[in-house]
Amino acid sequence: MAKVAVTGAKGLIGSAVAAGLVARGHSVLALGRGAGNAVTLDLTERQLPALPPIDALIHCAGVTDEEVKADRDAAMVRAVSGTERLIAAAAAAGARRMVYVSSAHVYGALSGHIDETMPANPLSDYALAHYLAEQIFRRHAAATRILRPCAVFGPLAELQRFRRWSLIPFSFPRAIAESGVIRILGTGRDRRNFVGTDVVAALAVDFIEMQINGVTLLNPVGTADLTVAEFAELCARLGGDLLGRSCRVEIAGKGDTAAPPLEYRSVMGGQRNGRSLETHIVELVRQCSQLGATA
Amino acid sequence: MAKVAVTGAKGLIGSAVAAGLVARGHSVLALGRGAGNAVTLDLTERQLPALPPIDALIHCAGVTDEEVKADRDAAMVRAVSGTERLIAAAAAAGARRMVYVSSAHVYGALSGHIDETMPANPLSDYALAHYLAEQIFRRHAAATRILRPCAVFGPLAELQRFRRWSLIPFSFPRAIAESGVIRILGTGRDRRNFVGTDVVAALAVDFIEMQINGVTLLNPVGTADLTVAEFAELCARLGGDLLGRSCRVEIAGKGDTAAPPLEYRSVMGGQRNGRSLETHIVELVRQCSQLGATA
Repeated sequence: MAKVAVTGAKGLIGSAVAAGLVARGHSVLALGRGAGNAVTLDLTERQLPALPPIDALIHCAGVTDEEVKADRDAAMVRAVSGTERLIAAAAAAGARRMVYVSSAHVYGALSGHIDETMPANPLSDYALAHYLAEQIFRRHAAATRILRPCAVFGPLAELQRFRRWSLIPFSFPRAIAESGVIRILGTGRDRRNFVGTDVVAALAVDFIEMQINGVTLLNPVGTADLTVAEFAELCARLGGDLLGRSCRVEIAGKGDTAAPPLEYRSVMGGQRNGRSLETHIVELVRQCSQLGATA
Repeated sequence: MAKVAVTGAKGLIGSAVAAGLVARGHSVLALGRGAGNAVTLDLTERQLPALPPIDALIHCAGVTDEEVKADRDAAMVRAVSGTERLIAAAAAAGARRMVYVSSAHVYGALSGHIDETMPANPLSDYALAHYLAEQIFRRHAAATRILRPCAVFGPLAELQRFRRWSLIPFSFPRAIAESGVIRILGTGRDRRNFVGTDVVAALAVDFIEMQINGVTLLNPVGTADLTVAEFAELCARLGGDLLGRSCRVEIAGKGDTAAPPLEYRSVMGGQRNGRSLETHIVELVRQCSQLGATA
């Protein structure tokens, strides 16, 4: 049984990781800025507090798209120096196994066949920040698994505190609950692999229990491969059934998508069954509509 | 004949690029912080001045190791936001062809066979900063050549103003001139490809005159492949002959170097003859000893 430090333990992926660790008999040391963490810690500070003894680190608080858009320079600095300080603090506390939750965007444009043998080609600011953090882990050279999920979905404990509504697994169900209409600005033909936080968490916890060393990449691949428009139609259909009203999808973008469709795959064993995308949609539409009703 | 904006035009590589452009009939718009530039411009500033009309940009003022060591966070920010602002200003002024002088360190550890087909693996802060700048050029997607030289040598117009004495092509000849002794802290068995600024400059100017588009990598490969110890011995021998005194090399590091020796190559046409490393050593020892005599 391991003692595992988890950053972002109150967040979307971190909460699933913390639950997954506890379910398998491990103990969790929650690290983060907010109240309710075992150790209060801000990766933008130059000096981090010493951590109590731990066996492993799972870093689920990498940069978010929102953070990058708000202050790109600060996000880059946190990705480099914040990650380095976090790794140093974890290593000093005894952590010998580490997991970093990165992003599929590190591969570059999300089109065509992508597996772990493909070279990285981070182009967006968001992708660059995740790539920087990956490389900081890589040079530390502890036993490390880097996970690069694509479109992550999962249950939200507290809807009101969630800050990442720009992600379509969340914004589309909410749009159905609030207005019955999903508006897509592009053509909606981009394909995404939708993966549950339970799958990402399982692959993170697996690695804590493994013996393999070195820094390795893993694509957590969910069972749902849909275009953005197909996902929207699924939200409209399931949400409409649940709410008993007619819902619809409006697509503003015209023309063909030139890029080949995404085939997001793993050659390293990252395929895993988990909570279904349909369950996620229904639950989230229900939560959002109840919130709207009580607001 | 093209009008070409050159950053770092007073620096080691930039001065060779500017000379190379003029020798081929192009005109140079020197951009930089110091006096003597046609446009005064600081890449750490949020707003750059508008540039007069240009055809191309050659960016020779990427981050230096000294800059990274002085303030790593600031160097990363300049590599991302400074590069983006520079590209935007150059593109707005009409630049359609661009060259970025990066570093072989972007490939990762300088050992084993390295050519342009190898994936990047930037690990040091210095390498990460150059990689960031490369990716900013890559996403701009103009016709761009990225050069990744290894150990660069070349003539210095003003020894007193040179700030990069931590580079061994400069520190070793200076040590011979000043003390007759080169002290190597490691084993000296690391191999380097030594390439002249004239070769780097020729490959940069070539690209301005080409028609090919897209973002492509090129390794500028010099004719001298030496270990650090071999280079030191060469400096001691040539410098000793010139100065008429006995010079020596002291190697502090013990043991075998585990890494396979560097084979720095180009499969994209980056091999080029140029000024010899021997000429560089003799000239620099002469300059340094004259400076010492008059100081």
